[in-house]
Amino acid sequence: MNTMSLLLLGFDLLGTFVFALSGGVLAVRHRLDLFGVLVLACVTAVTGGIVRDLLIGAVPPASLADWRYLSVAMLAGLVTFRWHALIERLRNPVLMFDAAGLALYAVLGTGKALAFGLSPFAATLLGIMSGIGGGIARDLLVARTPVVLQPTEIYAVAALAGGGIVAIAHALDLPQAPAMVVGALLCFGLRFMAIRRGWRLPVARTPDES
Amino acid sequence: MNTMSLLLLGFDLLGTFVFALSGGVLAVRHRLDLFGVLVLACVTAVTGGIVRDLLIGAVPPASLADWRYLSVAMLAGLVTFRWHALIERLRNPVLMFDAAGLALYAVLGTGKALAFGLSPFAATLLGIMSGIGGGIARDLLVARTPVVLQPTEIYAVAALAGGGIVAIAHALDLPQAPAMVVGALLCFGLRFMAIRRGWRLPVARTPDES
Amino acid sequence: MNTMSLLLLGFDLLGTFVFALSGGVLAVRHRLDLFGVLVLACVTAVTGGIVRDLLIGAVPPASLADWRYLSVAMLAGLVTFRWHALIERLRNPVLMFDAAGLALYAVLGTGKALAFGLSPFAATLLGIMSGIGGGIARDLLVARTPVVLQPTEIYAVAALAGGGIVAIAHALDLPQAPAMVVGALLCFGLRFMAIRRGWRLPVARTPDES
Repeated sequence: MNTMSLLLLGFDLLGTFVFALSGGVLAVRHRLDLFGVLVLACVTAVTGGIVRDLLIGAVPPASLADWRYLSVAMLAGLVTFRWHALIERLRNPVLMFDAAGLALYAVLGTGKALAFGLSPFAATLLGIMSGIGGGIARDLLVARTPVVLQPTEIYAVAALAGGGIVAIAHALDLPQAPAMVVGALLCFGLRFMAIRRGWRLPVARTPDES
Repeated sequence: MNTMSLLLLGFDLLGTFVFALSGGVLAVRHRLDLFGVLVLACVTAVTGGIVRDLLIGAVPPASLADWRYLSVAMLAGLVTFRWHALIERLRNPVLMFDAAGLALYAVLGTGKALAFGLSPFAATLLGIMSGIGGGIARDLLVARTPVVLQPTEIYAVAALAGGGIVAIAHALDLPQAPAMVVGALLCFGLRFMAIRRGWRLPVARTPDES
Repeated sequence: MNTMSLLLLGFDLLGTFVFALSGGVLAVRHRLDLFGVLVLACVTAVTGGIVRDLLIGAVPPASLADWRYLSVAMLAGLVTFRWHALIERLRNPVLMFDAAGLALYAVLGTGKALAFGLSPFAATLLGIMSGIGGGIARDLLVARTPVVLQPTEIYAVAALAGGGIVAIAHALDLPQAPAMVVGALLCFGLRFMAIRRGWRLPVARTPDES
């Protein structure tokens, strides 16, 4: 394994850990027991990738075939269970890690879908799904409308931008690696600025507002 | 592409559009932002077919492999976002289109499952799933019990009738095309009459009613 | 078909029936109509196995390919619809059957995943998923946080123990059949004792408790 793929694996596991933290925190807030915390941590970390792998026919999904992903997610669940008060206070760093995880999942997800022969259009959608799918499953399990669908600082659009760069580069036969780096930086940068500046998407105007 | 398959494609895309409208309208009512509206529109339009395709092993699913489905669904999402007040007023025409979409999805879904070698019994269930899966996913995303499961005018039973005709015709080695036409008309007709006459399924009697 | 596989099939269908009962009862309590009751019965009975089969690439899933599973689930739905008051009174026997179903699903699910080449770690997780997936889908459909994630008598941990025995035996090249029997008995025994004695997992301590 060369330096590049080692770096990718490292980022991937870091993304897994941080996404899992967000699941664990939500589980603790909803007063789930230890098992519930572990499940929400794992579901948040791996659902996006699993759905992507099912849709492109890559079974068994990577996060099941490689024990490291679920182990890292469970570790994050245990950490949340024990030190959740600390993690709640670290909210800002966690948001930054989450943005990094989103960027990496979106870019890697798009790349994997392209490698399985999907069109740039479909691959970008699967990249977004890789990035946001886990959070959607996490929110559904505690019976609330997924945060990513609610009016909040732009999130999925950042994933769209990152994955889109990779897909466009592929369509134009440009080299993949630099496109992934640029895409990930763009996604992270957009999300970072959105949090800082409060960038949001519009909400449809409804009669009861006028 | 001959006239028949062109007609089928046209109806399929029309069904996609109308199902997507219902997702978009629900998203606007729940005050989701533009991204949320687009996601709910797409999810409503394609989830039923995607789950069917996963279950019969047809990956990548048709609605991902062919860009037209998601494009049409997104268009419907944009239309809802901009003109949702108008669409709310058009409720009755939308119900009619929705019945047409249901009929088409149920019949085509059953046919596709049969073509992949499933039994008539399983194929009919997958036809129903094709018709109602999108609406179930739509409702889950806003954390409410799916409308199709609640006591309302018969809906899934109409899909059962339509898909059942196709499955029975297949079991009896009758020609497929006329069976599909009859099945779609039966499904549409049942749903149409159910809306007009308020036909409902029974609800179990519970102690607190007596 | 020899005696052993006949016995396994019998237990499997019994598990299907009992899981379906729990879905039907919940549907009646939420005042769903006949179709809703049937859907919740089927979803509860087969979702865990279907998700497992999708993840290991066994399509079409066994519970779709073999008509007996869904027929038994629908029968349970009809029974609940007609005699739900009786079933509510039978709560304790139902809990016992449910524990038997859980034990069997966990053990058989782990075994099937191992047969498809998954690692013991992943196979155990899929065994747990086979056992609890149906109940999670059931609860999501009525928009509540899955019972299995809430603090309750240990449930998934029993499935973990049962599936784990099978996976460990496989890793050590021990014979499969006795491991399955031991695993199933261990899972059932744990669940039985948990109900009797009120065994629970810990909940994270949150600030508002101190």
